[in-house]
Amino acid sequence: MRNIKLSIRYDGTRYGGWQSQSNSNTIQDEIVRALKKITGEKVNLIGSGRTDAGVHAMGQVANFKTRSRIPLDRLQMALNSHLPKDIVVWRVENAVAKFDSQKNAKSKLYRYTISNGNFVDPFIRHFAAKYFYRLNIDSMKKAAGYLLGRHNLKSFTAKDGGYDGNKDYVRRIKKIKIEKSGNLVYIDIEADGFLYNMARNIVGTLIEAGRGKIKTGAMRDILSKKDRAFCGPTAPAKGLCLMKVRY
Amino acid sequence: MRNIKLSIRYDGTRYGGWQSQSNSNTIQDEIVRALKKITGEKVNLIGSGRTDAGVHAMGQVANFKTRSRIPLDRLQMALNSHLPKDIVVWRVENAVAKFDSQKNAKSKLYRYTISNGNFVDPFIRHFAAKYFYRLNIDSMKKAAGYLLGRHNLKSFTAKDGGYDGNKDYVRRIKKIKIEKSGNLVYIDIEADGFLYNMARNIVGTLIEAGRGKIKTGAMRDILSKKDRAFCGPTAPAKGLCLMKVRY
Repeated sequence: MRNIKLSIRYDGTRYGGWQSQSNSNTIQDEIVRALKKITGEKVNLIGSGRTDAGVHAMGQVANFKTRSRIPLDRLQMALNSHLPKDIVVWRVENAVAKFDSQKNAKSKLYRYTISNGNFVDPFIRHFAAKYFYRLNIDSMKKAAGYLLGRHNLKSFTAKDGGYDGNKDYVRRIKKIKIEKSGNLVYIDIEADGFLYNMARNIVGTLIEAGRGKIKTGAMRDILSKKDRAFCGPTAPAKGLCLMKVRY
Repeated sequence: MRNIKLSIRYDGTRYGGWQSQSNSNTIQDEIVRALKKITGEKVNLIGSGRTDAGVHAMGQVANFKTRSRIPLDRLQMALNSHLPKDIVVWRVENAVAKFDSQKNAKSKLYRYTISNGNFVDPFIRHFAAKYFYRLNIDSMKKAAGYLLGRHNLKSFTAKDGGYDGNKDYVRRIKKIKIEKSGNLVYIDIEADGFLYNMARNIVGTLIEAGRGKIKTGAMRDILSKKDRAFCGPTAPAKGLCLMKVRY
């Protein structure tokens, strides 16, 4: 059996997220269907992690095992010709037999894009969330500082622990970088793992700090509460993009 | 009467171009309809020029006269809240009474974006045209050099002279800049005016030079023929964007 690693880019607007589910079409469904047509096999496609409905990816990674002997370059051409135009497989590689794109992921980098002005550029309207009130970037940076390092992040995940019933809420946030360019604010968050809704809840809370609705130091208190009720609102899915998975 | 100047950005994917016409919805229609709701007047909205169906704009300019006394900032807010999300009015200004966005335009800058690789980035799939075969940028630059300056450009416009029945085919091309960045090739063309399909026909011909289907010097012969039959194919609309109108 060959173990094949895919690097995938997608505009998540039309999809119910990465993971197969009963009630909507997903990125995983599309790729599994395309691979069925190409190899004749119904493969077990393992993604580095789920992305929610409407979330995008520049660098999603997935792997699958196959008996097919199709050369890598032909596989890539065939995949991209079968996939809809909003999903692109930009790299196809042979991986060692034990490589697992989910279990071996060391960290993930997400980028959130906020359009912080009176209007949203029509060319990126599906990839940025509008926030009308002016954000103070320095306050956001100060608030973000409290999140760096290893923390119990229960306050920043969905109340029920999310769809995977995760009980371990400790994650290490390696980096949070906040930058403003014109009307756009970029929030890059790198962590060794992300709980359900964690990235969007952190962004929603940083926005409250940036608008002055909470003090920057409140971040420490929110962390210590270990209760979702204390963090800010979940930022809209369309601003979020999985940029990179490190192994 | 006030004379109001609008700067407009649009994703042209869903529209039949700028100019009102009987058989499809256009950018002009959308803006005129929004202004009717806001001012109660059916204004005569003059655009700097037509853009074809599927062509985009970063810097389209238009003007209209109105008796409405609505302040400029409120007009902008109202316009953007009435317009669909793929059209944005990013500046609203008072203009002198005699300003005419079409007649006063000194030059226009168009950008054409080619995705020259095996796949098209899904995030820009509506704004770049795919060209699979590798393009030689130096050949394209050499070919473009022959077009600089004042020329009769009849070879680069539609056979029937286009929908405005233009009889004067002489235009001055001020600049053609060709740049490659990763898989993307950008062709910037600035001229004192553009004939119907001129930008897309120039791009189609430069692509033939870049692929080696014609010699770079053939550009001079094509110009001298003054016949559309000799230039390359019309490049797809979605790669074209009106970047700037200079006054």
